[in-house]
Amino acid sequence: MKNGQNNNKQALTMMIFGATGDLAHRKLLPALYHLIAQKQLPEETTVVAIGRRKLSDEDYRQQARDSIAEFSRTGVDQEQIDGFLSKLVYHPMEFIKEPDSYQPFREHLEQIEGNYTQPPIRLFFLAVAPEFFGVIVKHLAQQRLVERNNPNHRVMIEKPFGSDLESARALNASISRDLDEKQVYRIDHYLGKEMIRNILALRFGNSLFEPLWNHHYIDNIQITAAETLGVEGRGAYYEQAGILKDMLQNHLLQMLALITMEPPADLMPESIRDEKVKALRALRRYVPQGACAGIALGQYARATVDGKTIPGYREEEEVSPDSTTPTYIALRASVDNFRWGGVPIYIRAGKRMDKRRTQIVIEFKRLPGVNFYTEFKDEPPNLLVIEVQPKEGMYFQINAKRPGNDFLIDQVEMNYAQSSRFQGNVPEAYEQLILEAFRSNSSLFTRWDELEQSWLFVESVEKMCHPESGHYPTYPALSRGPKRADQMLEEEGRTWREIDLPTEK
Amino acid sequence: MKNGQNNNKQALTMMIFGATGDLAHRKLLPALYHLIAQKQLPEETTVVAIGRRKLSDEDYRQQARDSIAEFSRTGVDQEQIDGFLSKLVYHPMEFIKEPDSYQPFREHLEQIEGNYTQPPIRLFFLAVAPEFFGVIVKHLAQQRLVERNNPNHRVMIEKPFGSDLESARALNASISRDLDEKQVYRIDHYLGKEMIRNILALRFGNSLFEPLWNHHYIDNIQITAAETLGVEGRGAYYEQAGILKDMLQNHLLQMLALITMEPPADLMPESIRDEKVKALRALRRYVPQGACAGIALGQYARATVDGKTIPGYREEEEVSPDSTTPTYIALRASVDNFRWGGVPIYIRAGKRMDKRRTQIVIEFKRLPGVNFYTEFKDEPPNLLVIEVQPKEGMYFQINAKRPGNDFLIDQVEMNYAQSSRFQGNVPEAYEQLILEAFRSNSSLFTRWDELEQSWLFVESVEKMCHPESGHYPTYPALSRGPKRADQMLEEEGRTWREIDLPTEK
Repeated sequence: MKNGQNNNKQALTMMIFGATGDLAHRKLLPALYHLIAQKQLPEETTVVAIGRRKLSDEDYRQQARDSIAEFSRTGVDQEQIDGFLSKLVYHPMEFIKEPDSYQPFREHLEQIEGNYTQPPIRLFFLAVAPEFFGVIVKHLAQQRLVERNNPNHRVMIEKPFGSDLESARALNASISRDLDEKQVYRIDHYLGKEMIRNILALRFGNSLFEPLWNHHYIDNIQITAAETLGVEGRGAYYEQAGILKDMLQNHLLQMLALITMEPPADLMPESIRDEKVKALRALRRYVPQGACAGIALGQYARATVDGKTIPGYREEEEVSPDSTTPTYIALRASVDNFRWGGVPIYIRAGKRMDKRRTQIVIEFKRLPGVNFYTEFKDEPPNLLVIEVQPKEGMYFQINAKRPGNDFLIDQVEMNYAQSSRFQGNVPEAYEQLILEAFRSNSSLFTRWDELEQSWLFVESVEKMCHPESGHYPTYPALSRGPKRADQMLEEEGRTWREIDLPTEK
Repeated sequence: MKNGQNNNKQALTMMIFGATGDLAHRKLLPALYHLIAQKQLPEETTVVAIGRRKLSDEDYRQQARDSIAEFSRTGVDQEQIDGFLSKLVYHPMEFIKEPDSYQPFREHLEQIEGNYTQPPIRLFFLAVAPEFFGVIVKHLAQQRLVERNNPNHRVMIEKPFGSDLESARALNASISRDLDEKQVYRIDHYLGKEMIRNILALRFGNSLFEPLWNHHYIDNIQITAAETLGVEGRGAYYEQAGILKDMLQNHLLQMLALITMEPPADLMPESIRDEKVKALRALRRYVPQGACAGIALGQYARATVDGKTIPGYREEEEVSPDSTTPTYIALRASVDNFRWGGVPIYIRAGKRMDKRRTQIVIEFKRLPGVNFYTEFKDEPPNLLVIEVQPKEGMYFQINAKRPGNDFLIDQVEMNYAQSSRFQGNVPEAYEQLILEAFRSNSSLFTRWDELEQSWLFVESVEKMCHPESGHYPTYPALSRGPKRADQMLEEEGRTWREIDLPTEK
């Protein structure tokens, strides 16, 4: 995983299926622009944008120029963008309806690759609706655009990978006919986020944390992914996904796996993924008796905030007026192994929350023997907070003596804010993902067995707790979410930690 | 130790022997001014300044006003200082040569205390040369100004308490005839420093540190007290004290005791001091074989820095031109118990060093298995740094992923700077010491058995390593000190950590 600058022993053909879509314009083109501007990809790189619309290279380049200017994380350099656009071509084709269109596509590709002096890596990015993943792979394989077991032919697949365990298994079976697992890069863009990549470095690059990282010293773990946004015009997708498939099955469980996994034998991608699978396997499934006691689902209702009316979920476009799709979940998970036995792992995610925040909180056990150390009685426990977004940073909350003549205790924070050190230099997740797929570092992607375990867990949640939906909606938009989520922790003598990282000075 | 504001159920008579001296003017008067201005002492407080010079109350008050204006840590408030001076009286007496002078002194005191509505605490501060400690206590006792076992009669004694083990024992025997140990407050002003008081809070007010605080996780501990100053006109004192008695016997060993002691049964003063004594008892004494290998002594030589010539120690006033008094010490200490077996504790102190810094560094063990975690190979160990002065704060150095596309490791600091949170509000050591003596919190003072153990250790150092002085001087003024100190650690594969706390923004 340690890598220098670009690898000039190879060429790269980067193909984007769905190049006229939102993801391509907002994320993929800016990411590729940065990677090429920073010379992280080979000099011999061609980005082939594939869409159904009839556009010329020049048309598409103009659109790309506009998108990059709008969505790039930094300003745009004219020379750099001209350089990038000179590597960008557009290939129109009906990639679903017309299987024959793959033949001229292959010829176009062979012509591009014929000019390389180095052997090319082919990276296919499927930025299309999930139902097309299987069929595109099949056509690519039929035309030998991807060859099974050729490590230079790789396919990057966006989420969602299946809509439930059964469909995920079916999709995987279909893809597996044409591709080896090692050629499949299933995207969970959270794995490309700086602070999530940093979990590995923090846990295994320091001797300080690992001795404390177990049930002896940790009281509970909290993983929160709260958004203020609603479904933003994607009601049809969301109706079918809900919070369980949009957030829990992928991002939240991936964070849980990285935080709770055992130290891998080495830091090679497969070793890391082996440990993640083990953690997900140890995740206790919900069983009928009292399952709902540990799960709070919810759906947001219309609310007026600062004089502005926020529609309820059921009022959103393409959403059923009596929808039972949950937009919020809080649950108490357990990783049933030697390390974590007895440590609750509280997970929550929601749309239309009062604050946007993705945060992992490790709450250490309270002090022993407070009766004898009266000065420290009732002082809060130590916290380690990893903030993934909107800020990127880490924070220790500890107890210290308040300066002054009395021996009084205050909470002080020791913090490390990444963005203040490396201003404007933090790459976006998709940059990291594309680059690591090019480098065949699969540790930032989800292996099939991880996904299967995640689906097994999510199905156990879904089956156990659906009755709750009868009471929907359960929380006003832009609020803390359903009261049940707070009660759940209160009943166990705990509380959700919501830490505001200190503002950078 | 948890205390509210002032205690108005008692009055206070605070007596300063040696009131015309440097310590009184620079430290004690400003400290008392702040304590009274902040209403930390009773409304019924009288400060009785005792000196041999014939001065009127008004003369002395004018001098006190000037000193407080010059040395106070904050500006001076006119109303507050008038209030303070109204509580200040001067009593001239020949307290060494004329034992009879104690009788009018007692009458003066009885007259002052006759006006109180509350029973007074008598606090005698002996800011005089060490040879006078015993005789003053004797006279005070003879006139029943202090009564043995009366907990309201207390004597604060400045360092040095003895000039070696024998004289310290003799002094203690003399004082003990008239005072119970509980009435004696032996000052080590380092114990009044904020970050040193904070060690208790950090170690025992957090669940994070104690599990790591042992030989399993800590590789070594470093305690540094470096000054840039020379002997500053106190050559006669220093000739006799040297670095061993000026710094090692008191400040350095006190810091060592607080860092290495076992958790006390509770946080009462005697419980804490019991544990400190145990740690000092476990401190391995030096024995003849190869003792000097673990000790580096030195003396500073004349040097020219930035065009300015700094005199060598032997050129200082009242210092012998062939003095063998050490002005620098570095040593490897061992606390031979279950917690610290095998963990070297490196201690150093020096005058005329290149930087003023009192710092405690806990160096954690390196990562295990670096061979398999190649990404983290050769990354530095985690450090916890407690800076006592000139800054006051705490700092973790950990390894994190460098933001960007590659998985590269950087050292980042998580820090807590006390002074940035409580600007200008940090009391000076003497403020805390006087207040805690008034409150009869003896945890900030050195008990006799601690002192005795410290002397035993210092004598073992002194006896083992004197031959080195033949090579004096050994380091240029305003330098890092003798090379031997660096070699000592190098030979063990270690290095002195010299951490610059990040400047506050």
